[in-house]
This record gives sequence, C-alpha cells and structure tokens, in this order.
Amino acid sequence: MVDSITVSVKELHAYGVSVLTSIGMNKQDALTIADKLVLTDSWGTFTHGNKLLGDYVTRLQAGGTNPLGRPRIVSEGPAWAIVDGDNAAGQVGCDFAMRKAIELAKLAGISYVGVKNTSHFGAAGVYPAMAAEANMIGLAMANDIPSVCAPGSRKAVMGTNPLAYSIPAGEHPPILLDIATSTVAGGKVYAALQRGETIPTDWIIDSDGNPTTDGSLYPLKAALAPMTGHKGYGMALLHENLAGVLTGASISWQVLNWIFDDKTKPTGHGAAFIVINPEAMMPLDKFFQRVDDLINEIHNSPTVNEIEHLLVPGEMEWKRREAALIKGINMPSDVVSKMRDLDNQIGLNTHWLN
Amino acid sequence: MVDSITVSVKELHAYGVSVLTSIGMNKQDALTIADKLVLTDSWGTFTHGNKLLGDYVTRLQAGGTNPLGRPRIVSEGPAWAIVDGDNAAGQVGCDFAMRKAIELAKLAGISYVGVKNTSHFGAAGVYPAMAAEANMIGLAMANDIPSVCAPGSRKAVMGTNPLAYSIPAGEHPPILLDIATSTVAGGKVYAALQRGETIPTDWIIDSDGNPTTDGSLYPLKAALAPMTGHKGYGMALLHENLAGVLTGASISWQVLNWIFDDKTKPTGHGAAFIVINPEAMMPLDKFFQRVDDLINEIHNSPTVNEIEHLLVPGEMEWKRREAALIKGINMPSDVVSKMRDLDNQIGLNTHWLN
Repeated sequence: MVDSITVSVKELHAYGVSVLTSIGMNKQDALTIADKLVLTDSWGTFTHGNKLLGDYVTRLQAGGTNPLGRPRIVSEGPAWAIVDGDNAAGQVGCDFAMRKAIELAKLAGISYVGVKNTSHFGAAGVYPAMAAEANMIGLAMANDIPSVCAPGSRKAVMGTNPLAYSIPAGEHPPILLDIATSTVAGGKVYAALQRGETIPTDWIIDSDGNPTTDGSLYPLKAALAPMTGHKGYGMALLHENLAGVLTGASISWQVLNWIFDDKTKPTGHGAAFIVINPEAMMPLDKFFQRVDDLINEIHNSPTVNEIEHLLVPGEMEWKRREAALIKGINMPSDVVSKMRDLDNQIGLNTHWLN
Repeated sequence: MVDSITVSVKELHAYGVSVLTSIGMNKQDALTIADKLVLTDSWGTFTHGNKLLGDYVTRLQAGGTNPLGRPRIVSEGPAWAIVDGDNAAGQVGCDFAMRKAIELAKLAGISYVGVKNTSHFGAAGVYPAMAAEANMIGLAMANDIPSVCAPGSRKAVMGTNPLAYSIPAGEHPPILLDIATSTVAGGKVYAALQRGETIPTDWIIDSDGNPTTDGSLYPLKAALAPMTGHKGYGMALLHENLAGVLTGASISWQVLNWIFDDKTKPTGHGAAFIVINPEAMMPLDKFFQRVDDLINEIHNSPTVNEIEHLLVPGEMEWKRREAALIKGINMPSDVVSKMRDLDNQIGLNTHWLN
C-alpha cells in the first residue's frame, strides 16, 4: 500500500509541467493544464486533479488527443463565439473558450462560448473560477458519453453532463458549485464497492430499470441514476444541447469514453460557457455587498447542533486551498500511486514522489 | 364536493380576461395573464394555472400588486437589460422582460434580462415557451421567500427558486422543463397529507434538521428538502443571485409570501431570463435537425416493460395541450371550486362555472 504524500503546490505544479512538456506539449499549454489540475487538488477534489494526468498522457501519446492542437474561433458575434478545440486537451480548448467568454462579456454584459472537438475538461469548476477572478459570474457545462439513466430507461441515455458556476463576492471567497447531474458520480460507486458497502437505493439503476444497492453491477449491468429523477435528466439534456447540439460537437453516444475507448481517436466532447458581467448592470461594490449580505444571512441561519455554520458552495474548497498554499497538499495514496506510475513510465524520477 | 368541469380553452381564457378587467386591469395586461394561466392549465399543470387567479385578484385589490403597473427598462446594454416591474402582476413584468430578452438575443446571440419589483410569475415554463416560439432557447429563473432547507440547516434558507428552460425542435414540439430546486413543491406535501399518506424521507426536514415522513409538520415545523441535498441548494443560490442579487430585487427573507403576507405590500420578487439565438450560430434547420436527432435517439432507447418510449421534458405537456385545444380542459374540482368562489365574489356569473 502506497502512503499519502504531502507536497507543495509549487512542486506539484512543476511535476505536471514536466510530465506534459516531456511528451512534446509546448510550455504554455502544459502550464494551463497543470494550473487547473493543481487548483482542483488544492480544493480537495482529488478525483479530478492530477489523478487524471496519467490517462490524459496515454491519450496524448496515442494521438487521440493532439498535444499540438491549437484551439481557434470558427465563428463569433457581439456576445458569442464557437470554438474549435482542434482536439487539443480539454483544458487547453476550454481555457481558451472561457477567456474569450470573459472578454466578450466585458462589453456585452453576457456571453456564450461553445466548444466542439474538445475532450474531458477536468473539474468543471475551474472555468467559472476564472470568471470570478475577473469579477464576473461564470457557468460551465459539458456533455459526455451516456452513463446515466432517464426515468423509465433500462440503459444510460445522458452523460453525467456537469454544471459548475461561480459568483464573486466582496469579503467572502467566490461562491463555487460543481455538480454532476446524476445523483452521484461513478467514482462514489467504485469507492463504496472498495469499502465493501452496499449503496443507497437512489445511486444506480440496473438493466431492468430498477434501483439496486449492488454497486458491483456498475457500469456494465447498471447505469447511474439522474439526481431527483426527471430533474437531473432534464438538466443533463439542457447541458447536452448547449454543450453538444449548439456547438457542433459529438452528441450523446457519439462521444467516446475518454479513458476506455479507442485511444487513437478524438473523443469529440463539447462544452459551453456563459459569463455575466455584473459591473455592466450595477456598481461592482454594490454587487459584492449584496452577495456578501446573502452569504452572511446564510451563515447566520440556525443549524443542527454539530454544525458551526451553514456553508455556501465552495467555502470548504477555498479554505482547503488557503491551507494548501501554506502547508502543501496531502495527496491521497491512490493518487500518489497513479502519479508514481506515470513518473516511472516517463522516467522523470521526481524526487518527492520516489 | 364540487365536480370537475370540462371547458374550452377559449372560454377559460375569456373567464380570466373578464375577471381581471372587471377589477380595473387594462385589456392588454389581462390578456397576457390569461394567456399564461390557460397555457399552464392546458399543459395539465393545474397547481400553477387559473387556480392561482383568486389569490392574484386578492393582492391586486388590496394594492400589494398594482393592476395599473407599467414595467419599464431601467438600464440596458448590447445583450442585457434590467426591468423594473413597477409592481405589476408577475406575468405582466416577466412577459415584458422575456420579450425584451428575445429582441436582444436576435442581434447579440445571447441575452440576459433581470426583473426587480415583480411578483409571483406563475409557472416558470411559460416564459421559455415564448423563446421557443421565436425559435430560440430560453431559460427562466426566479427567487421567492425561503421555504427550503440547506444541508445542516434547521430552517428554510432558500426559496423553491425554479428553473425552466425550452429548446425548439424541428419535427418535435419544444423540449420544456420546469422544476423547483426542492425535492418536491410544497403542494405535493399538502396533497399527500390530504390523502392521509406518509411522505418519503427526502421531501421535508423538521426543525431539528432531521428528515421526517410526517407531512403535517410542513410548513410551520418543517421546511422542504433541497433536491439531492447540496445540489438543489446550490442551484437555488445561483437563481437567487441571477434573479435577486443582480437585478436589485428583494433577496431571500426580504421577499414577501405572495399569498399569506401583508396583501397591501409589494412582494419584491426578482426574476431572470436568458435567451440564446441558435440561428446566430448555425443554420436553423441544421440546429433543428440536431435537436430532433437527439430526441429520436432518446425515444429509441430501451425502456422498462410498461413504458412505450422514454419521454423528453415537456412531451407529455404538449400532448395534453394538443388534446385540450380540441376537446377542452378538464379542470379538477379543487380548481373549479376556487374559480367558482372568485366568480361569485366578483359577480360575473360565468355560465359554464355555475
């Protein structure tokens, strides 16, 4: 069993850049990807941070993702753009798209930027966080190969199609939510299985269309359940339309599984970003004050005994990041194991990993 | 016990217009409200149709809602506008706002229109339906006085803050979803109670912060549960920000309950509309084809035995409307009872109601 390792944000970042440049990616794109994976790990969202780097590298080396891909704008208007991700890494195409969305919203007040020919973009929350950093409200959506049932289906019909958003505040860190439209992500099913636990009845649906507590059926003989039935299914369908249909990306079962499907072929994912610039509509300090007032009201709401105060989405993550910047990140053993394998495979001999 | 009554769409519409003009509203605004209530009833969403008219009238007569209110644009930019609803009926302010959003999106590709000083706007879905009618994608959000817990709270912290969206298709009717961000709406708790049923554990939270199956505790000693815990809470907070914070509307506990609170005072609700014009981004027939392809794929997915085919959101509602336009609407007894009371109170003597 591998131990967890505490590593500084700086060293973790340098590791990601070294891995990616060593397989032929240019420095700028490597920095972009490393930024996002480290930000995600510093939030404590280890399922979507550097744990994924090994699988990204596999696809980049096999050619399914293009390490030299150059995202470009294929069409645009006063408040929108469609980006061709050129099959570069998801983070590269989507960082490009979110920056364009921020630029457009500055003048127009709101913007939509859709991306086609992209791939798995990591944690959806990293893109709205860019908007919040620019004092704007950001939303991110994506599609994926189906793994989630609809009410009445015996098979997955929608991807986990996430939604993330961020809203900047004054005295508080930005509100930041990042959710899948399934009840839980597939990773939670695996984790329960590894711990030998049965799972709640609303997590997965077997191939007869019935809820089951047997996590071992997933994913071959069961699909994830949509959150609150028709509600999660309906939201997944909205994201499929904004990220897939409207961008010209692959849709639904046309999207390839970025880990398991043919690694030499583009996955064809789509993504969508909406940015709103509050400063266009009211003085920024007034907006911040109103967001702060709302957060303070929530913080002062009565709680169940063991809870000090109610949290707003992202509060826990920003606290973890603050600590991580000072004390480093304690990377869990499963992530360390993956990173060490990748390190050996590439022959980097990163000192803190070995 | 009152019987249900089948009435034509035309007669139901004429009833609403008569009620509203008889209390001093101008014909145009009465038509706007009647349009939306009849559309809602024709979908079979009887909780949000003409059932509400009596309570709207009470507030309009007491002065809390202004029957002569004139919504106006207070500020605007290339792709956005803020509307002061002038405390007119929610439908009047929000119809005005959605029309503005459609107009802006035509040129800009996407638009945001926020409304302050509005009130209960009925079924959220009627506004996105306007966008779909104009071949655009529409979203509607609103805030409301808190009735929904957050994870860990002993008291409501968010309104049911709905999201509705619509996406136009080619051969199919528009996709149309209208959801509260609580697990269920409060009306479902009352209905279960009336039938003497206990309720599922994920519907309401008691004042100790624990799930309960005792529906009689709601609303005084229990609040609604957010859908899938932190997910529904997080989405309600997004809608609170876009509909409340950013528009200058009342926020959270400042909003008045439109049925129970002081009927002489404005409720202060906020609402927000986002419209995306697909034609700006791709030829409309290509967009329609892509939406149709997605719907057809869903229709052809394997289902559990008793289900003929999977539904897309809104499919059931548009089928009911199609039937309603031919055969009339069978108004349930509780709605008939409310409408008859209102009819007598105003002295209209509507023939089909009496």
